Amino acid sequence: MELVFTTWNEVEAYLDRSKGIIVPLGSIEQHGPNGLIGTDALCAEAIARGISGSDDVMLGPTIAFGVAPFNLRFPGTISMRSKTLMSIVTDYVQSLASQGFERFYFLNGHGGNVGPVRAACQDLQAERSLSASGSQRDMRFFFRSWWEYPTADALRRELYGEGEGMHATPSEIAITQALFPEHPKAAPAAAPPRLSIEYLRDHAGDNHADARQHRLHFPDGRVGSDSRLARPEHGRTLLDAAIEDGKRDYKTFLSQL
Amino acid sequence: MELVFTTWNEVEAYLDRSKGIIVPLGSIEQHGPNGLIGTDALCAEAIARGISGSDDVMLGPTIAFGVAPFNLRFPGTISMRSKTLMSIVTDYVQSLASQGFERFYFLNGHGGNVGPVRAACQDLQAERSLSASGSQRDMRFFFRSWWEYPTADALRRELYGEGEGMHATPSEIAITQALFPEHPKAAPAAAPPRLSIEYLRDHAGDNHADARQHRLHFPDGRVGSDSRLARPEHGRTLLDAAIEDGKRDYKTFLSQL
Amino acid sequence: MELVFTTWNEVEAYLDRSKGIIVPLGSIEQHGPNGLIGTDALCAEAIARGISGSDDVMLGPTIAFGVAPFNLRFPGTISMRSKTLMSIVTDYVQSLASQGFERFYFLNGHGGNVGPVRAACQDLQAERSLSASGSQRDMRFFFRSWWEYPTADALRRELYGEGEGMHATPSEIAITQALFPEHPKAAPAAAPPRLSIEYLRDHAGDNHADARQHRLHFPDGRVGSDSRLARPEHGRTLLDAAIEDGKRDYKTFLSQL
Amino acid sequence: MELVFTTWNEVEAYLDRSKGIIVPLGSIEQHGPNGLIGTDALCAEAIARGISGSDDVMLGPTIAFGVAPFNLRFPGTISMRSKTLMSIVTDYVQSLASQGFERFYFLNGHGGNVGPVRAACQDLQAERSLSASGSQRDMRFFFRSWWEYPTADALRRELYGEGEGMHATPSEIAITQALFPEHPKAAPAAAPPRLSIEYLRDHAGDNHADARQHRLHFPDGRVGSDSRLARPEHGRTLLDAAIEDGKRDYKTFLSQL
Amino acid sequence: MELVFTTWNEVEAYLDRSKGIIVPLGSIEQHGPNGLIGTDALCAEAIARGISGSDDVMLGPTIAFGVAPFNLRFPGTISMRSKTLMSIVTDYVQSLASQGFERFYFLNGHGGNVGPVRAACQDLQAERSLSASGSQRDMRFFFRSWWEYPTADALRRELYGEGEGMHATPSEIAITQALFPEHPKAAPAAAPPRLSIEYLRDHAGDNHADARQHRLHFPDGRVGSDSRLARPEHGRTLLDAAIEDGKRDYKTFLSQL
Amino acid sequence: MELVFTTWNEVEAYLDRSKGIIVPLGSIEQHGPNGLIGTDALCAEAIARGISGSDDVMLGPTIAFGVAPFNLRFPGTISMRSKTLMSIVTDYVQSLASQGFERFYFLNGHGGNVGPVRAACQDLQAERSLSASGSQRDMRFFFRSWWEYPTADALRRELYGEGEGMHATPSEIAITQALFPEHPKAAPAAAPPRLSIEYLRDHAGDNHADARQHRLHFPDGRVGSDSRLARPEHGRTLLDAAIEDGKRDYKTFLSQL
Repeated sequence: MELVFTTWNEVEAYLDRSKGIIVPLGSIEQHGPNGLIGTDALCAEAIARGISGSDDVMLGPTIAFGVAPFNLRFPGTISMRSKTLMSIVTDYVQSLASQGFERFYFLNGHGGNVGPVRAACQDLQAERSLSASGSQRDMRFFFRSWWEYPTADALRRELYGEGEGMHATPSEIAITQALFPEHPKAAPAAAPPRLSIEYLRDHAGDNHADARQHRLHFPDGRVGSDSRLARPEHGRTLLDAAIEDGKRDYKTFLSQL
Repeated sequence: MELVFTTWNEVEAYLDRSKGIIVPLGSIEQHGPNGLIGTDALCAEAIARGISGSDDVMLGPTIAFGVAPFNLRFPGTISMRSKTLMSIVTDYVQSLASQGFERFYFLNGHGGNVGPVRAACQDLQAERSLSASGSQRDMRFFFRSWWEYPTADALRRELYGEGEGMHATPSEIAITQALFPEHPKAAPAAAPPRLSIEYLRDHAGDNHADARQHRLHFPDGRVGSDSRLARPEHGRTLLDAAIEDGKRDYKTFLSQL
Repeated sequence: MELVFTTWNEVEAYLDRSKGIIVPLGSIEQHGPNGLIGTDALCAEAIARGISGSDDVMLGPTIAFGVAPFNLRFPGTISMRSKTLMSIVTDYVQSLASQGFERFYFLNGHGGNVGPVRAACQDLQAERSLSASGSQRDMRFFFRSWWEYPTADALRRELYGEGEGMHATPSEIAITQALFPEHPKAAPAAAPPRLSIEYLRDHAGDNHADARQHRLHFPDGRVGSDSRLARPEHGRTLLDAAIEDGKRDYKTFLSQL
Repeated sequence: MELVFTTWNEVEAYLDRSKGIIVPLGSIEQHGPNGLIGTDALCAEAIARGISGSDDVMLGPTIAFGVAPFNLRFPGTISMRSKTLMSIVTDYVQSLASQGFERFYFLNGHGGNVGPVRAACQDLQAERSLSASGSQRDMRFFFRSWWEYPTADALRRELYGEGEGMHATPSEIAITQALFPEHPKAAPAAAPPRLSIEYLRDHAGDNHADARQHRLHFPDGRVGSDSRLARPEHGRTLLDAAIEDGKRDYKTFLSQL
Repeated sequence: MELVFTTWNEVEAYLDRSKGIIVPLGSIEQHGPNGLIGTDALCAEAIARGISGSDDVMLGPTIAFGVAPFNLRFPGTISMRSKTLMSIVTDYVQSLASQGFERFYFLNGHGGNVGPVRAACQDLQAERSLSASGSQRDMRFFFRSWWEYPTADALRRELYGEGEGMHATPSEIAITQALFPEHPKAAPAAAPPRLSIEYLRDHAGDNHADARQHRLHFPDGRVGSDSRLARPEHGRTLLDAAIEDGKRDYKTFLSQL
Repeated sequence: MELVFTTWNEVEAYLDRSKGIIVPLGSIEQHGPNGLIGTDALCAEAIARGISGSDDVMLGPTIAFGVAPFNLRFPGTISMRSKTLMSIVTDYVQSLASQGFERFYFLNGHGGNVGPVRAACQDLQAERSLSASGSQRDMRFFFRSWWEYPTADALRRELYGEGEGMHATPSEIAITQALFPEHPKAAPAAAPPRLSIEYLRDHAGDNHADARQHRLHFPDGRVGSDSRLARPEHGRTLLDAAIEDGKRDYKTFLSQL
């Protein structure tokens, strides 16, 4: 079930069957010369939609905006401040929790969201933990980036090896190729500059250089990823693998004590 | 052009042709027994997509989450605090402004967003106005709710008269029927309770009752709207009218001194 | 009754008679060559004082500071950020609500306050709506700009026609002339530049240009208003009309279900 | 000169003569059985108005709302959160500083404002100190509570001795009696409970008990003050003394290097 | 007892004996040519540790970071914004209050903390006072700067007279000399510039000049303090005096009604 | 060099040799029956002190307060909200950056800090990236939890195997035993409940259960860690290993392009 396409009566009925919801998390940022700016949101949403194919799993609306300040010098990137993403997650969760939802499964498509979303979940639990009232309902969070799914992870390594790289990866681009054949993009002529692991580590987004440095170091936006390798048929296989992994993972989360 | 389906190189090239962008604003909230929870976001996005059909108009990603606290007692409603929506708008605008965008046209689908988005725009201008540096680029905002478009407004009054009402209107439901025939919903058996204008005025969301009172006063979620009247063919006509109105309106905005 | 001139015992007794309070909202900003910087606050306060002439209507202290960033380049303008005005309204309301006040009638004197005050009221209701506890007292808001009062509105149009304009209007200046004859100001020599409706619409404060542009477009501060037309005797008539309208409007608000 | 009664042209001209402004700070809170709720704001404003009697001294609009959470259980008290008062001070100062004002003299009428206003001033200086740009104009603050003025302080001790107490003092009530004879209040029948210095110290607002405890300890709102002693003629003398002290103090502030 | 060196079981047992805790407050800022950057935190912590020598007094972890924006141009100074210090105090207090602590005694080592910490305590009480629930536990604050202790204060005046000055005082430096003989610093060659009381008053941190001005006025960081006079043996005596004063003061606080 | 024990002149001289600083991050929270509440801060600080043994490496003051809401039901735990820790990190970094520091190496001792500190660093870079001015100095961050150091990590696995567990680990307790023999604690009588990997995963702090659930699931505070195994001599070895690893790691960070 997909929340935006239901009525409130259908949601009310759903809450008798389940207290869980899947929340896709994306980012609006450059993905190199042939990657879509919406890649992260589009991938997370598609996988989450696959997981929520039955009437017993609810797909919440995608939080498409992520935290990607290091990509701001590439036009088209829209980056939330961490505090903003934390507020979005807080209001999203509190709204649904006031209605009976208790289990929030974040399906993430962008590395820069990990810190802020975990921070938001900790603060949500802090408010509950500091409050005097003892009768509160349960509230549990789970956070999973899709590339951590074991089958999908094995597949992308098998398909692309070192070419998978770190940003604008062929795997995520292949998924959007499978999903949106009506938006074809010409592959870049060249591989990304061949970089040592050390170089990549020093300059990847997680080490928090600013946007000027980031564009200087990675002039076409790819961080070690050879996005020429992406093929729509890979994307379909990756999607299927991630969806199967996700179904199991979500079920495990719901069964936690 | 639709930002999420472009590459950063395409956005860079677009900025040579135009500094404008259309930003759809929605809400995730109950829309009565046969209205989709995503109605406001879906309508605003569809109209904005229609306006941005050429290579000279950029459609930004939809801010689907709006401010609708009065609907929180209807399951499925996700309401941002006003401050959160203000932060989203701020980060969205500042990201793109740092890359050269100068004209932001908000195409709104939900009444509760008017206050917070105007407030955010005022604060963005305040920061610019208080800063000492004189060399800043231009930054201009325009805010339009789609039902204010003259042709679309005339059409919905002609089609539904008093049945249009104030929330979960047949016009917005008709638009989603036209857009998503794969999600049909059974029309409610009855008209909404017949309410005097005074009663509606006193209890509508704009007068800021809380969610408990709101559900008490409007038990099936409709505020004076006879959503049984909605037809997909109306929706198509309304969409076309709004898109034509919007193209003119956006062009006028871009031509402002 | 005027809160600042009562004792707490008198307020305690008042709460047995009524749960309502009138809150005037102003702005501290330029009002052209012969308008007082305090115009908006002074007008709203005077009208609210007239409405609250009996022991059954309480006048709260004026929130004189409003949101007017577009006027910051005119010396003397003091503009709050929207978030600040939202915090003032929040603390004002929560203080009195903790003591038993339930109905807050905002009598507004400045257009730029509409967005932020509505946003604050929505967030106040959101906190109530999200909280688990069911036993809360009622809390209701009403927001009215004085120029919306029907008799006062008709009068200003009749008196000034197109010369009323949009900022530093002869009607608000006439009211301050009636109230403060000890602060006479020389009328400007000339009418404001004759502007088309389109030009005004494009450049008025509501379209959120910044303070530099605003002063450039409206060099003496008037936005289409011919403030030479203001006369103290008009002001007295306008005041009386607004007060009568306001008494009815406030009574209707109190009688809401 | 009083800002709210000037035009922007007059302010522009004033800035050629002086960069200073006096900002009265008050509080809206209970002042015992015969003290006005607006006492603190009314006293500070009246003294500040006296100081700014010439064309070379500007009186800014009063920030009437202060921080007085301990008095919230007495109806009529409106207390700002500290953060809100800090935001008001910040926006007030930044607005005027952007136009050329450089010296801000806070004339305070309420003890609870000391912490938050100093905190706000420190944060304003922090932003300037952390910024890279070297060309900023001067910005200086001075904070003075009127009862610290030496002549006024000696006078209130001489008039009331121990009866002056700590809250709802006869001196501040005498000032409002002098200012507003049209709002007479009956003096309480009894002196406040006779309290030891230790008891007062332990329970005064500065030691931050909450509002429930505060009303319990001081049931009629007076903290050791015998407000029966207040006389309008005392008030006039106190006002005159404070105004003379204030004129000297403000002049000294302006002459600082 | 020192919280960081206890186990949670020991704290649980302590709460049966006492609800109090001592919270040292410091600052990380320049202290002239021979004063340690950590001086304020080190002094407050050492005195607090002395007071909490028994099993019935708990020493909380030091909040070493204070508000000192005026010293930011001296390398090594780390200044919190006032709002940040307010948040630290809030979270610190709310954490322990949720476990049963009720009396918080702030032992302060830095003048710039007074405003923000008082502001935070007022806001903590405001939240309690505004909340509807009546069953909350007690929460009381006390704020004391160590130099206010009567014996210690008399001693420092006796030892240094006018040479004590206002910042980087010989008394605080003597205390760190006594505590940390392994970090000797060469005394400056000269006394600080001889300044009139008026000059000092005008330029001291409390009057909120910014960091550029502050360094200009006090080029070696001392504000009228002749830190050459500091001796480790003075420090030992000062420490002992402050600890004895503090034990009495804390006991009085705990005995408040 | 240790910042709190230097003078500002020494810091000024240091900045000619290096732009780097090490910032230890801890937490104040329960560490089971024989673990100190300050464990995380004490370990991180000791390792960082070892790394900064020379005049070319600066040790900044420890941020002892971390984010640990799940432990709030164990007395003694002091947890910052994520937003508070983000503000501390922001003000800490901006203070030093304004003086010339450019490289910030966070040496972390608590898992719950990862999200908030990364979030803060992203927001710091966002402000730089969004600002128009091009002449800013470099600002780089590195985040390392000490148990990730390869030698130390291997050692703790070798010493304790599965008994290392997830919270109140024998390795961190051994380190505090080595550092603070004057605070001995009796080891618990029993091993922690034997838990499956799945059970641990479901209930560890990272999955964000609230404090009530957390204490219910882990009644003595240990999460799968057999803290009986800790020995002071292990602690010394672990410390030495971590310090050597850290020296290399910090040097690598400084050498990044």
